Amino acid sequence: MDRPLIAHVGIAVADLEASIELYRLLTGGAPVHIQDIPERGLRLAMFDTGSPDAGGKIELLAATSPDSVIGRFIAAHGEGFHHVCIYVDDLDARLVQLKAAGFQLIDQSPRVGADGMKIAFVHPSSTDGVLIELQERTTK
Amino acid sequence: MDRPLIAHVGIAVADLEASIELYRLLTGGAPVHIQDIPERGLRLAMFDTGSPDAGGKIELLAATSPDSVIGRFIAAHGEGFHHVCIYVDDLDARLVQLKAAGFQLIDQSPRVGADGMKIAFVHPSSTDGVLIELQERTTK
Repeated sequence: MDRPLIAHVGIAVADLEASIELYRLLTGGAPVHIQDIPERGLRLAMFDTGSPDAGGKIELLAATSPDSVIGRFIAAHGEGFHHVCIYVDDLDARLVQLKAAGFQLIDQSPRVGADGMKIAFVHPSSTDGVLIELQERTTK
Repeated sequence: MDRPLIAHVGIAVADLEASIELYRLLTGGAPVHIQDIPERGLRLAMFDTGSPDAGGKIELLAATSPDSVIGRFIAAHGEGFHHVCIYVDDLDARLVQLKAAGFQLIDQSPRVGADGMKIAFVHPSSTDGVLIELQERTTK
């Protein structure tokens, strides 16, 4: 199996268009999709190498509302790294294991993310200060 | 081509053995290698899915000297996200382009990283607050 461990890294940015230009230069590629998620006050751009299942993507996250998760994050911390998303094979089982091991879960059970994937977040207080998203693999 | 954009994410940790246990639980796997780099005051553990070229890895970075890059980072910022490493096809050419576009480069030309890869760092002041490592792909 030649799959990466990381599905994507989320980066909070203030000006999505400006940051798309930055990452276009850094990565040498264009965003594969740009998506508005009004119910979360969020607009995102995803960079990858063109293969939908390749993983290891960069997700630029901009607030469209100051009261959104990303708006509040940027107000408190400024732009920068927001979270890393790791693939897991069986998310329900992993959450049970992590809870038993004392991890502080933000999502006690899997929920459906913006892209239809099965996800859950783990609080940075139990992961060395890193907000972790877990995403169930859909391909083997 | 089914390669990820991200080679790895580097996370600064205070206690490498404790963090290896955390990431063993989070990822469901063991570190593929643990390496001491005495000349950089660094000890690291790399997690991936077992395929050396899969990319998308997690690199846990612990200081073995308080005066090392990671020692100073943790003293200033605490544990957490340190950098993200992106694959590029031609690192020399990319650095020329980025310099011309006004990016602040930490490494003006490629150097050899701990694992023998050709790398260069870009300063977070020109990348939305994210320390970026660029690494030349060795496989196509």
